[in-house]
Amino acid sequence: MTTYIFGHQNPDTDAISSAIIMADFEQQHGNKEAKAFRIGELGPETQYALDYFNVAVPEFLTDDLTGQDVILVDHNEFQQSAQNIEKANIRHVIDHHRIANFETAGPLYYRSEPVGCTATILYKMYNERKYEIRPEIAGLMVSAIISDSLLFKSPTCTQQDIDAAQALAKIANVELETYGLEMLKAGASTTNKTEDELLNTDAKSFSMVDHTVRIAQVNSVDIEEVFERQEALENAMNKASAENSYDTFILVVTDIINSDSKILVVGAEQEKIAQAFNTTLDNHTAFLPGVVSRKKQIVPPITEALS
Amino acid sequence: MTTYIFGHQNPDTDAISSAIIMADFEQQHGNKEAKAFRIGELGPETQYALDYFNVAVPEFLTDDLTGQDVILVDHNEFQQSAQNIEKANIRHVIDHHRIANFETAGPLYYRSEPVGCTATILYKMYNERKYEIRPEIAGLMVSAIISDSLLFKSPTCTQQDIDAAQALAKIANVELETYGLEMLKAGASTTNKTEDELLNTDAKSFSMVDHTVRIAQVNSVDIEEVFERQEALENAMNKASAENSYDTFILVVTDIINSDSKILVVGAEQEKIAQAFNTTLDNHTAFLPGVVSRKKQIVPPITEALS
Repeated sequence: MTTYIFGHQNPDTDAISSAIIMADFEQQHGNKEAKAFRIGELGPETQYALDYFNVAVPEFLTDDLTGQDVILVDHNEFQQSAQNIEKANIRHVIDHHRIANFETAGPLYYRSEPVGCTATILYKMYNERKYEIRPEIAGLMVSAIISDSLLFKSPTCTQQDIDAAQALAKIANVELETYGLEMLKAGASTTNKTEDELLNTDAKSFSMVDHTVRIAQVNSVDIEEVFERQEALENAMNKASAENSYDTFILVVTDIINSDSKILVVGAEQEKIAQAFNTTLDNHTAFLPGVVSRKKQIVPPITEALS
Repeated sequence: MTTYIFGHQNPDTDAISSAIIMADFEQQHGNKEAKAFRIGELGPETQYALDYFNVAVPEFLTDDLTGQDVILVDHNEFQQSAQNIEKANIRHVIDHHRIANFETAGPLYYRSEPVGCTATILYKMYNERKYEIRPEIAGLMVSAIISDSLLFKSPTCTQQDIDAAQALAKIANVELETYGLEMLKAGASTTNKTEDELLNTDAKSFSMVDHTVRIAQVNSVDIEEVFERQEALENAMNKASAENSYDTFILVVTDIINSDSKILVVGAEQEKIAQAFNTTLDNHTAFLPGVVSRKKQIVPPITEALS
């Protein structure tokens, strides 16, 4: 029986890479039926990493998960996961996010650590069991760490992530800064993307008390290039909110060079969202200096402001 | 700032022991503010273990947990935990149960493994970090494993639990079978207990779809001794259900010598409860041969039957 391994919807480089890595880990562990899947389309950053290390794109998940064995990586909240996940037999979770909207009928393996990247935890798991880390697996691990930490600039980044990335860069035979900036830039071009692509490539829904908050994040080398399209973006965000019952939709545009963000907010509770960052909204937008991490700098203050 | 460490309500030997053990682990890890608490009264089995190894009973938790650092052991479901747990800062969970009704605002350490006892996971954590396991800590670990596994007879018991118990018995200087049976017997006397004591000593509430199911378990060396009081027990169960909005209340009386159980069921969905075990209720009761584990043999089939 196949063990389905996958990361979250709108997969980023950690979600895709960690699925591939965990499938390799399971294979080494003797689970020959372990297989990596994806539940969304790849972004250009992830495609760059897979191409660089010559790794195949995981198959898109189409099977019904009812009663199937599943391993989740880089997420746990069911609304970020696959269809029918609540009917699957979740055997194992490897994650570095908060836990919410997650439930199982029986006991399971769950390993969560507050580090910057799921791949960092997987790196520790390989070392604990002395499993071989092949160069392309090391390459995916280092790509995931660079992606999640924005080249170590995110406040989510820990010393463990940095140490792992430095050790892995040697195995993968890349120079961290050079490779990292090229990979991030590959994903940070916004001009050739539609509004829907900007809003969907790295977007997650969060259940907060009785609210559903959608938070999309876009990396950019020029924030204002994105905001030239503010009106079209707002229309698309309002449309998506109506179709999917999001109470609030927030677009976070992050400057990967200067490590700042500017947010665009539509929907309910705009005042509370602004208060969460001790600021006010100007034409639905606010500049958030030093903010780059959705998980550590955006979700917690909004969760608190809405509760 | 104190780190509050505690197991579930109506604490069993694993819940109390794992709190004490984890506090010792945290101390060795450098967290000098780590302290074990309990959120319920000790049963005679646990008291026997603490007395045998000369370990003090943890303080009863009375502080408000709002904004406090917390480590949960042997549970995660909020309805089994302390008051205001949803307002605490849960830093770490060590558990071996299903995950449900658990939510945090930020990332955390979470280590769950489908083994028979939380203390078995803690034993691995000590070994991974090469921390010292003092004889009384080993004694508490072995007591917790014997308690949760009913001296290795429960289907929740894994080879890891057995291996851990055998290694720990040497450090604790006890003979497993002799000590284990004495400890279990200390907790299995039912004649000197009131109905409320029988129903509360090891009871947990479970959220299942839109149902709240209360499941109490009593160890016994003579099942029928308990059922001589069936009418009084039913009255107490109906009263507790009305007061606490339990939809269904199940008392599981487990024969620790023969490894069988007999259940008593009051409240809604009695037919579905019986179907969960492929049986019918006779005067609200059913004999369940070979069933000893609430977690593995009772909660999953009921969860499925009610969904």
